[in-house]
Amino acid sequence: MSIPTIEWDNGKVKLIDQTKLPQEFVYTYCEDIESLREAIRKMKVRGAPALGIAGALGVVLGIKDSDAKTFSQFKDKLNEVISCLSTVRPTGVNLFWALERMKKVALESGKKEIHTVKEILLHEALEIVKEDKTICRKIAMHGAKFIKDGDRILTHCNAGALATADYGTALGVIYRAKEQGKRVSVYVDETRPKLQGARLTCWELMQAGIDVILICDCVAASLMKDGRIDKVLVGADRIAGNGDCANKIGTYNLAILAKTHKIPFYIVAPISSFDIKIGDGTQIPIEERSPDEVRQIFGNWIAPSGVKVYNPAFDVTPAEFITAIVTEEGIIYPPYKKTIRSLKGII
Amino acid sequence: MSIPTIEWDNGKVKLIDQTKLPQEFVYTYCEDIESLREAIRKMKVRGAPALGIAGALGVVLGIKDSDAKTFSQFKDKLNEVISCLSTVRPTGVNLFWALERMKKVALESGKKEIHTVKEILLHEALEIVKEDKTICRKIAMHGAKFIKDGDRILTHCNAGALATADYGTALGVIYRAKEQGKRVSVYVDETRPKLQGARLTCWELMQAGIDVILICDCVAASLMKDGRIDKVLVGADRIAGNGDCANKIGTYNLAILAKTHKIPFYIVAPISSFDIKIGDGTQIPIEERSPDEVRQIFGNWIAPSGVKVYNPAFDVTPAEFITAIVTEEGIIYPPYKKTIRSLKGII
Repeated sequence: MSIPTIEWDNGKVKLIDQTKLPQEFVYTYCEDIESLREAIRKMKVRGAPALGIAGALGVVLGIKDSDAKTFSQFKDKLNEVISCLSTVRPTGVNLFWALERMKKVALESGKKEIHTVKEILLHEALEIVKEDKTICRKIAMHGAKFIKDGDRILTHCNAGALATADYGTALGVIYRAKEQGKRVSVYVDETRPKLQGARLTCWELMQAGIDVILICDCVAASLMKDGRIDKVLVGADRIAGNGDCANKIGTYNLAILAKTHKIPFYIVAPISSFDIKIGDGTQIPIEERSPDEVRQIFGNWIAPSGVKVYNPAFDVTPAEFITAIVTEEGIIYPPYKKTIRSLKGII
Repeated sequence: MSIPTIEWDNGKVKLIDQTKLPQEFVYTYCEDIESLREAIRKMKVRGAPALGIAGALGVVLGIKDSDAKTFSQFKDKLNEVISCLSTVRPTGVNLFWALERMKKVALESGKKEIHTVKEILLHEALEIVKEDKTICRKIAMHGAKFIKDGDRILTHCNAGALATADYGTALGVIYRAKEQGKRVSVYVDETRPKLQGARLTCWELMQAGIDVILICDCVAASLMKDGRIDKVLVGADRIAGNGDCANKIGTYNLAILAKTHKIPFYIVAPISSFDIKIGDGTQIPIEERSPDEVRQIFGNWIAPSGVKVYNPAFDVTPAEFITAIVTEEGIIYPPYKKTIRSLKGII
C-alpha cells in the first residue's frame, strides 16, 4: 500500500485508526504520549513493527515540549516517557527495541544542547520509519522466492501494511509475488477476538487486488485436509534465541495443523523482532487482555455476562514447527539456535 | 437441565429459541411445518439429536390436519412433509433417521384408519422424545467413567441439553460426573461463526453450577501445550461405518491438537448418529452456510461486505484421531469398523 499506517505529521503522530476499519478509513492524531499510549492500548495502532515506530515517534512526542535546562533533567524526562510507553503492551519486542535505540541515541548526544538532542531524536525516529519501509521490501524480496504461481496461502491476524509503516511482512511477501506476476489466493483467518484478519487483512488485500477468502479460525484444518492450502505465512511479535516465535493467539494452532498436513509454515519478520537475550519461548511474557473482548462484540453480549474468560493475546510456536524464518537479511532454517546468530544485525 | 428443549404442546411444536440465548430465554411455537423448517434453518433449534426430535414432531405437525380419505392420499402427504423436512440441513443424520422411523411406522399401519395412523405417529414421535431422555442418561452413565475428580475438559459447540430433549450427550457426561461428586472445569470453545459455545454451552453449564471458562477457538492449542486440558469431549452429527465423525466445524482442528499433545479425544453420541450405510467420512455431505454468518455479527459488518467467505458448518474427524466413542449401548474403541458393528441397534 502507498498509504502510510503511522507517521510524524507536524509535531503529531498521525495514524490510521484501525479499530474503525473496514467500515471507516480515518486518521487519528496523537498530540501527547498519553493519547498515543491509549491508541496503542486500544489497538488503534497494532502490529509489532508499527508498535516499534509508535514507540520511536512517541519518544519524540514525549520530549518535544520538555523545558529541561540540563541534560540530566532531559534524561529524567526521557526515562519517564520511555517508561510510560514501555508498559503498555508486553509481548512484542519491537516496541522495546525502538525505545532502546532512541535512548541510546539520546545518551550518545549527552554533550550537545537540548534542542539539538531533540532534533537528533526526531531524525532517529524518522530513520526508523524510513528503514521499516526498506526492510519490508527486502523481506518481501527474499520471501517471494517461496511463492509459486497459483499458490493458496493461509495467513492469520494482520502482518501487512497496517502492521508496519506501509508494506507489511507476511503480506509484503504476497504483494511482491503479485508484482512478479504470480497469481495467488489468500485464505484469511478472521482472528478472534479482535478480528484483525476479517477487518484488516481482508481489507488491505482487497485494496491490493488480491484474491481473498475469509474463514473462521477453526476452518483451516479441514481446508488443509482437503489439500486446499499450499503454505502458511504469518508474522511474529518476538522471536527467542532458539527460534521459538510469539505471535497472535492461534498461530501455534496453525503451526500444528501445518505440520500434521505436511504444509510449509513460514514466519516473516524483521531483525528487530528477534530477542536473543532470551533463550526460548517460555520466557516471553504473554499479554492477557480483557474478558469483555471475548464476551462482547460491538457492545452485544455473545456470552453470559458473568462467564469467566481466558483471553491471551499471543501464543508461542516452538521452533520445531517452523519451516523457515524470512528476514530482511535473508532466510534462515533450523537449527535456528545457530542460524539466527548468523543474521546481520542480531545482537 | 429439567427444562425441555423441544416438545409437543397441544398440537404445536414448542421449542427454546436458541438464537435469543443467552440474553433471552423464550419459547417459540411452530404450528406448521413451514415455520418448523424455518426454525431449523435459522438454528432456533439445532443439535443432531434435537433435530431428530424436530423431524419426528414435524411429521406429526405436517400430517395432523390432512384430510386424506385413503391411505394412498395420506402417504402422498406424508412423503411431501418428509421431503420438506429432509432438505433443510444435510449433515446430521439423526433428522433422516427420525423421518425414516416415522415413515416406517406409518407404512406398517397402512391397513388402519387415517385418524388411527395419525395417533400412532404422534405416539411414535413422543416415544422418540422419551427415548432421547433415557438415551442421554445412559450415555452419561457410560461416559462418566472417563471423568476424574479435578478434570479440566475442553468442549466445542453445544452437545448439551440444548442439543437434545433435555440432558445432552457430551455435556450429559459432565452433568453425570458432577452428580457423582466429581469436580470438573470446562473450557468452552466459543465456536464461530454461530457462537454456540459462547451463547449456549456457557449458559447451560452455568445454570448447572459447573465451573466454565470461555475461550476463543484458537486458544485451545496453547492451553494444551501448557498442560491445562485433561480431555476433550464433543458430540457428533454423523458417524460413518469406519468411525469417521462429522461434527461442528473446528472439531477436526481440536482432534489434531489433542493427538499432538497426547490428550484423549472422545466422541459422545447416540446410536441414531451412526450411518454405517456409508463407508467413511468422505461421503458425508457438508453443509455450507451463508457468507454473512461470518461477515456480520448482530448486523454489524466485521469484514468488507464484498469479501468472499468459505463457511462450512461441519468438518470430518478421521477415526484415527478418536480415542473412544461413547454411546448408550456402551463405549467402543478402535478398530471402529469392527466395534461399531458390535453395538446393539446399529443397522
